[in-house]
Amino acid sequence: MTTYRLDIAYDGTGFSGWAVQPGRRTVQGEIEEALGKVLGESTRIVVAGRTDAGVHALGQVASFETDREVPGALRRALNALTGRDVAVNALEPAADGFNARFSAVSRRYRYRLETASVPSPFERERAMHWPYPFDRELADRCAEAVRGVHDFTAFTPTDTRHRHFHREVSDAVWSDASPGGSILAFEIEADAFLRGMVRALVGTILEVAGGRRELADLERLLRGGTRPEAGDSAPACGLYLLRVTY
Amino acid sequence: MTTYRLDIAYDGTGFSGWAVQPGRRTVQGEIEEALGKVLGESTRIVVAGRTDAGVHALGQVASFETDREVPGALRRALNALTGRDVAVNALEPAADGFNARFSAVSRRYRYRLETASVPSPFERERAMHWPYPFDRELADRCAEAVRGVHDFTAFTPTDTRHRHFHREVSDAVWSDASPGGSILAFEIEADAFLRGMVRALVGTILEVAGGRRELADLERLLRGGTRPEAGDSAPACGLYLLRVTY
Repeated sequence: MTTYRLDIAYDGTGFSGWAVQPGRRTVQGEIEEALGKVLGESTRIVVAGRTDAGVHALGQVASFETDREVPGALRRALNALTGRDVAVNALEPAADGFNARFSAVSRRYRYRLETASVPSPFERERAMHWPYPFDRELADRCAEAVRGVHDFTAFTPTDTRHRHFHREVSDAVWSDASPGGSILAFEIEADAFLRGMVRALVGTILEVAGGRRELADLERLLRGGTRPEAGDSAPACGLYLLRVTY
Repeated sequence: MTTYRLDIAYDGTGFSGWAVQPGRRTVQGEIEEALGKVLGESTRIVVAGRTDAGVHALGQVASFETDREVPGALRRALNALTGRDVAVNALEPAADGFNARFSAVSRRYRYRLETASVPSPFERERAMHWPYPFDRELADRCAEAVRGVHDFTAFTPTDTRHRHFHREVSDAVWSDASPGGSILAFEIEADAFLRGMVRALVGTILEVAGGRRELADLERLLRGGTRPEAGDSAPACGLYLLRVTY
């Protein structure tokens, strides 16, 4: 058996998320179907960060094992067989035992906000439109509060398959992501994320930065709490899996 | 009668171009229909740069005249009544006699090339994919050759409604448009453009920069020639009307 690593980008708009679901177009389904055609056998892939419907990826990593002979032009074949909204940017043999999910040391996500009063046609499905009050200093203090080890129970659905709710956030920072200045980005890196965690955090931070919630309340929720106590989830279209570190 | 100026951006992907065509979705049709609903009368708009199907605009300008009372929230109403792929960024009364087309002093277009070997999912319909040889020095010399007054007959369809074929190009320049470096942009500004001129120029410059045509041949065509002598038109999806100067 040889293990392979795939580096993938996708526009999540046209997908019902990463994970295979019967009757739905998913990124995993699209790539596994293409792999199956080229390798001549059904092939399961493992992914670093399962993304929900509408969430994008710039630096997603997946892996698979096969004992079939892998053609040299496999990457090109996968790109030809998948939609234009998926790009396989690299496909290389990996070290024995490499597993895109379990070998990952950290994941980094970006959340994009568009603050212009009229949303750009070129940002639809690519950023959350936020033409409301946004206190950057408060947002920065929220990011600071999020860094470190916390109990993120309040930032994932109550009906959960997770068993541990502590995660270590090694970085969380707001930045201006467009020269003109109408795109703000929140980047967050952690050892691992709970399902929906970034979107719930961003939604809650926006309440603080928008003056509708106290910073102290976010700090309290980071010590533990229930999902209804935190803010609404920010929409999927603003979220990007940026990169995975091994 | 009062004259109004509209500043508009649109993603051209879902439109059969600017100009109204029966049974087709066009930008002019979409905006005129919305204006008609709000003003209660059929209203014609005039535009600075008619764009073809699939061509985008960041700084398009249009104008219209009306003797109806224009509600203060007209801009907001137009944004609500048009698709998310159109944005009316400004709507203001203009000086008497202002005409978006005839008052314009110059138009500036941008053409975007994506040079990465695997095209980004986020650039589909927004850039031309060009993973082929590209000699930047030759491309810069082409841009230099294009600047000035030339006979652009070779860069517009033979079957034309234009009567004059000389245009004055005040600027033409290549630049790196992405920090990572996989997007190149060609910007060109002129008093006016012939139909299809930018795309025919870009297609021809790519032949020179790709080593399939001599620079001297481009220079010869700029003194006059026929459309078949120039290169193929670069695809619509890479072209953006950037701004109009009055």
